[in-house]
Amino acid sequence: MAFQYAYMFNELIQKLKQYDTVGVFSHIRPDGDCIGAQVATCLWLQENDIRAFAFNDDDVPLNLKWLADYYPIRQPDEKSLQKCDAFVLLDGNSPKRFGSYSDYIQDDPKPTYMVDHHPDPYDGFDFSISVEEASSTCELIFHLFLQNDISQLNEDAAKALYTGILTDTGSLQYDSVTPETMSIASELLRIGGFRPNEVAERVFSNKSLNQLHLLSKAMGTIELYEDNQIAVMYVTKEMLEETNTTNDDCEGFVGYPLSVTGIKAAILFKALGDGVKMSLRSKSNDVNVNKWARKIGGGGHKKASGAWHPGPLEETIKEVVEIGAEQLVSVDKS
Amino acid sequence: MAFQYAYMFNELIQKLKQYDTVGVFSHIRPDGDCIGAQVATCLWLQENDIRAFAFNDDDVPLNLKWLADYYPIRQPDEKSLQKCDAFVLLDGNSPKRFGSYSDYIQDDPKPTYMVDHHPDPYDGFDFSISVEEASSTCELIFHLFLQNDISQLNEDAAKALYTGILTDTGSLQYDSVTPETMSIASELLRIGGFRPNEVAERVFSNKSLNQLHLLSKAMGTIELYEDNQIAVMYVTKEMLEETNTTNDDCEGFVGYPLSVTGIKAAILFKALGDGVKMSLRSKSNDVNVNKWARKIGGGGHKKASGAWHPGPLEETIKEVVEIGAEQLVSVDKS
Repeated sequence: MAFQYAYMFNELIQKLKQYDTVGVFSHIRPDGDCIGAQVATCLWLQENDIRAFAFNDDDVPLNLKWLADYYPIRQPDEKSLQKCDAFVLLDGNSPKRFGSYSDYIQDDPKPTYMVDHHPDPYDGFDFSISVEEASSTCELIFHLFLQNDISQLNEDAAKALYTGILTDTGSLQYDSVTPETMSIASELLRIGGFRPNEVAERVFSNKSLNQLHLLSKAMGTIELYEDNQIAVMYVTKEMLEETNTTNDDCEGFVGYPLSVTGIKAAILFKALGDGVKMSLRSKSNDVNVNKWARKIGGGGHKKASGAWHPGPLEETIKEVVEIGAEQLVSVDKS
Repeated sequence: MAFQYAYMFNELIQKLKQYDTVGVFSHIRPDGDCIGAQVATCLWLQENDIRAFAFNDDDVPLNLKWLADYYPIRQPDEKSLQKCDAFVLLDGNSPKRFGSYSDYIQDDPKPTYMVDHHPDPYDGFDFSISVEEASSTCELIFHLFLQNDISQLNEDAAKALYTGILTDTGSLQYDSVTPETMSIASELLRIGGFRPNEVAERVFSNKSLNQLHLLSKAMGTIELYEDNQIAVMYVTKEMLEETNTTNDDCEGFVGYPLSVTGIKAAILFKALGDGVKMSLRSKSNDVNVNKWARKIGGGGHKKASGAWHPGPLEETIKEVVEIGAEQLVSVDKS
């Protein structure tokens, strides 16, 4: 794998060094991994005397704004886009994940490079580094420095890369974290001269009081079904209104029902107006929530999927749990 | 530091190899770090043909029972204690942290060794490795293997050590985590051939439904004081009764008020019958909660302290917040 990375990144480095100006996009509705990778990539370009623009259609989330102090992130405009000789797309597997980039590039085709770790990558880019097994795009971008000149990795870039590894792995807890991931995290701490709490507190200790009150209400709804194998939690429009919160404030909530001891799967239902959206999570190899979600017209991955149901809430819960129960039964029989 | 560890652990290794039978104690009210260190140390002794007993006065917590499958942990009894030629005490800084050990040793003195990372260690042991800067006792015990024969570190011992590092660092997020800690975590994953989720899910995904309902009620009480600088949360006896929970179920709750964006300190008050116990936490270098707690007759560390107040709850909150406010004012002036 190390050799494969060296080969891929050497090729990317040679390509990028041809240009005077490069536009670097993070995906729409940005998260810690794409913003971290974007900031570090721009700092790398700058270190190598290549002018860099960091673009995103959307605002940087509140808990990541400090990263934009390391390198400014702007909304793309015609004039800036025209100045770019090439583009780098980070942490997304197809042009449409990058908003106005996908429109612009049709009128004014320019070389585009992608670095990403999502499955099923679009194959029309000029060069792509797509490694599904990587914990994060930030883990990949570390090799951009490693293969060129590791001394160009400064404190800011180290913290940016650490942020993406941290946020895309649930604090280094997911099964995507390899010994190599952990060893890169160690190198980032050493090179950057910081401790993990500096990044973790900025990224995670940023709840609003309203959000905690919403979480309180939602957590009170958790119930277990099917012999305590399925945990269900819900959020209603009324709860959002009572706590002055929005759908975005539900981020991460599904982890709470999923943390109940002994369960195999958890579902968060959100009845926010237009039917009921749901997030399905499995913590058992026996339960494939992708199969489950597909039966309701949704889909995703084995351990994490989503779906929609016309509602109302009570019927939705009953129906979705029953569909899950069938899968639990077929597991018991197999 | 590496040289210092080598020297200390070589000395400990030579001492332990003199004995046929060693009793290994983890501290009373055990946690992931002491149990992980205990299991790994017993496996190390076994690998080196030394008979090992793992002792604890208390039960192993539910979320750590799987570690006791790697090496049996028993309550100390006269007969087993008599069989031991020496004792090793793990993750506690004085004999009284080890329950019945401290009584037994007075009647039947035997060589005792300590490995720990708490401040102010008792200095009467025959040999101690006490490193306050270490993230965890498990990080220290890794060097027992490293200095002797790293090939003796098997999958079980690696998972045991990983558990202690994980639980004592809030999932590798505290400021006690150094590049060295992270690099040891990487080695444990590599040598043990496992991924972090295997340990993290066992250790952290073990909430009872009742505990989540208690957390729901407690989270609903969070309020901000002193220009949103202090977050307060409380738990009452009635809440425990309504949710069929105990004081133990409040473990970790103080992290929720502490996660509110922009605050400097958080307090969890527990009015469970006999006055009001409180946990004070700071996330600002400006606020020393040890000084704060001392004014109410408590104490601890700068960032984490505890205290007791006769109550009732409402007056306690008012008084404790006012004392904290003085400190915030004196900070503003300094």
